[in-house]
Amino acid sequence: MTSLPERYEAYLDCLNAQEWGRLGEYVADGVHHNGRKLGLSGYREMLIGNYEEIPDLSFKAGLLVCEAPRVAARLDFDCTPKGDFLGVPANGRRVSFAENVFYEFRGGKIVTVWSVVDKAGIEEQLKAG
Amino acid sequence: MTSLPERYEAYLDCLNAQEWGRLGEYVADGVHHNGRKLGLSGYREMLIGNYEEIPDLSFKAGLLVCEAPRVAARLDFDCTPKGDFLGVPANGRRVSFAENVFYEFRGGKIVTVWSVVDKAGIEEQLKAG
Repeated sequence: MTSLPERYEAYLDCLNAQEWGRLGEYVADGVHHNGRKLGLSGYREMLIGNYEEIPDLSFKAGLLVCEAPRVAARLDFDCTPKGDFLGVPANGRRVSFAENVFYEFRGGKIVTVWSVVDKAGIEEQLKAG
Repeated sequence: MTSLPERYEAYLDCLNAQEWGRLGEYVADGVHHNGRKLGLSGYREMLIGNYEEIPDLSFKAGLLVCEAPRVAARLDFDCTPKGDFLGVPANGRRVSFAENVFYEFRGGKIVTVWSVVDKAGIEEQLKAG
């Protein structure tokens, strides 16, 4: 049995490899995201959409706090959205930002996600640029 | 010795009671907030400013993930900012939103805070209202 941090890092590896066929090893069929039931297929579509908008997207946990069955991660992004990003016109400009996100695992799979992306920080950078 | 979750809840109680003279029991002199060194006095000023802008502010952890020396909390707010809030004109309208925040403790006191407030969620609610 792998530890919860190992399990979570393997999930991030799966995202970074864009191995969508393996997403169901880490994400439960009935997964909820920010209070909405997306399900595995909706969750996969969301991630594929993220990569379409941000081709150089890469997931890296700068902070990881684990207390089973929960993981909290601060994800550090440094990437180049093609067009609008969270309503901010990025248009190919590089931007660094964080996402603070909580996950609940059941049976080794993510069942619930509560995510907040630092929109204010993105706005500040892209206005300054 | 109290546990880290108990220590964190006592910190929230101190904020909710606005007992600013006791803040130094929970927050270190050289505290950093989102990469900036605020120090205890700057941190206190930030919180007092929050209460001036949002008189009915109340701190409540909906999710708490603890792995010493770190605490991750999802704070659920339901409050009524007087004027602008994060650049959004709230003007006395009620708004519910989350803050996902990481703390690092040293010697029982908070030394580092990494916070993201759900600005996109606030904008969505106040546009709809």
